[in-house]
Amino acid sequence: MNVLIVFAHPDPRSLNAALRDVAVAELTAAGHAVQVSDLYAMRFKAEVDRDDFPLLAPADRLKVPGASKAAFTAGALTADVVAEQQKLLWADVLILQFPLWWFTMPAILKGWVDRVFAYGFAYGVGEHSEARWGDRYGEGTFAGRRAMVITTTGGWAEHYSARGVNGPMDDLLFPINHGILFYPGYDVLPAHVVHRADRLDAAGFEAAAEGLRERMRTIATTPPIPYRRQNGGDYLISGCELRPDLGDPGARGFALHVGRAPATAEAAAPTRPAA
Amino acid sequence: MNVLIVFAHPDPRSLNAALRDVAVAELTAAGHAVQVSDLYAMRFKAEVDRDDFPLLAPADRLKVPGASKAAFTAGALTADVVAEQQKLLWADVLILQFPLWWFTMPAILKGWVDRVFAYGFAYGVGEHSEARWGDRYGEGTFAGRRAMVITTTGGWAEHYSARGVNGPMDDLLFPINHGILFYPGYDVLPAHVVHRADRLDAAGFEAAAEGLRERMRTIATTPPIPYRRQNGGDYLISGCELRPDLGDPGARGFALHVGRAPATAEAAAPTRPAA
Repeated sequence: MNVLIVFAHPDPRSLNAALRDVAVAELTAAGHAVQVSDLYAMRFKAEVDRDDFPLLAPADRLKVPGASKAAFTAGALTADVVAEQQKLLWADVLILQFPLWWFTMPAILKGWVDRVFAYGFAYGVGEHSEARWGDRYGEGTFAGRRAMVITTTGGWAEHYSARGVNGPMDDLLFPINHGILFYPGYDVLPAHVVHRADRLDAAGFEAAAEGLRERMRTIATTPPIPYRRQNGGDYLISGCELRPDLGDPGARGFALHVGRAPATAEAAAPTRPAA
Repeated sequence: MNVLIVFAHPDPRSLNAALRDVAVAELTAAGHAVQVSDLYAMRFKAEVDRDDFPLLAPADRLKVPGASKAAFTAGALTADVVAEQQKLLWADVLILQFPLWWFTMPAILKGWVDRVFAYGFAYGVGEHSEARWGDRYGEGTFAGRRAMVITTTGGWAEHYSARGVNGPMDDLLFPINHGILFYPGYDVLPAHVVHRADRLDAAGFEAAAEGLRERMRTIATTPPIPYRRQNGGDYLISGCELRPDLGDPGARGFALHVGRAPATAEAAAPTRPAA
């Protein structure tokens, strides 16, 4: 398969960089093709602004969705954005790797999302009607491809546990896993999280590396998080609210949007043929 | 009171800018002092990198928390970051205003957080022992001050409702409200959210503006979200997990960290004297 790693750490000697190299080596050894977008090394521009939309006249207001749609339709997005979109179209698997800063991704990676995930490419795709509300949440440009997050924290795992004060890691990552990755169609694998990143000793690093190698070995077969597809019948269109009869009684919040995992082995098989 | 609005939209003619001006006018008319950090207009640097830490030797690895601590302790943070920290120390109320892009803040505002919320200033504050785990989540540099989010979405309110496909807005904002604002001590007011931002007509704008004026009129008295204080007895130290006897039965996720609102009028009074 083709794997794109979008990597966001400012130091090439960081733990994150070392883990990235572990992932690349393991994927390459298994015969996968790997590309890395090292956002700091690329000096990737983080801010959405007028420079992103050369067609926009100076007199026109910058409404980002409209400007993004016009530029994408006309093939007039900037070269750095188009290059990232081409990598995404090449990749069967997308990995976002970053240190967790203030409970989400670093600004430079958020800027990559804000700029590369254009209207018509990652959102604003498909028909909006009373039967379906766009190709999103399980449908869209990246349907049939896989994605996952690799992240590190300074804090303890307990602080991110089901009752930990930071909130559960899966919920903290929901806006990324569900809102950024599942939205344009990716099957999203559970994140790989390394805690206490600033204090790992050699044994700790090796354990983290081996855990990551295992995730890379199983990247084609790990069952995705069973998020509910928006247009699959679970939601009322066009309000996009979960049907009243669905969801565990008493469940609320993000957990409502996770359905039941398929029980068959077939369901865990890769959804696209290997390239 | 002193109010700082940190504003992130690239177009000065945007709906967000118009709402910001409404807020500034209302606050000023009520006698408050207002400063605005207009991040795009300031061309605020979004990426944390080595340039943020002039004391860091080229041979040293950039471990962000350590470098941030050393620079903050030595008074060696960059001038743009120090200026923002001074504004934060001046402000009784912090408002973060931004369009919701991919379910969180734009990159430039995330970069403001990543850079300005330094170790020793907004995290890494206080004693870490078996009795308390730092001055955070209700304690810290900004204890007794207030903060709130003002945001706009392109989507419908229903999509962000309790059962909406995007996830509930309060949960999407939890990593910001709880993880970025409550963490260093702010009392966090409920967010002010304007939906369908790209399609507001004149009547829609006036309704949004009037709702915002009302929020500005009540900014000193609106009861904050009753997040649980980490060191107030609700959490076991040092694992920082919620005590087994607390939380509604069956509750999980972020909702566990919201306690009960105080019933008395006194509790809704401002926690710092007006300046």
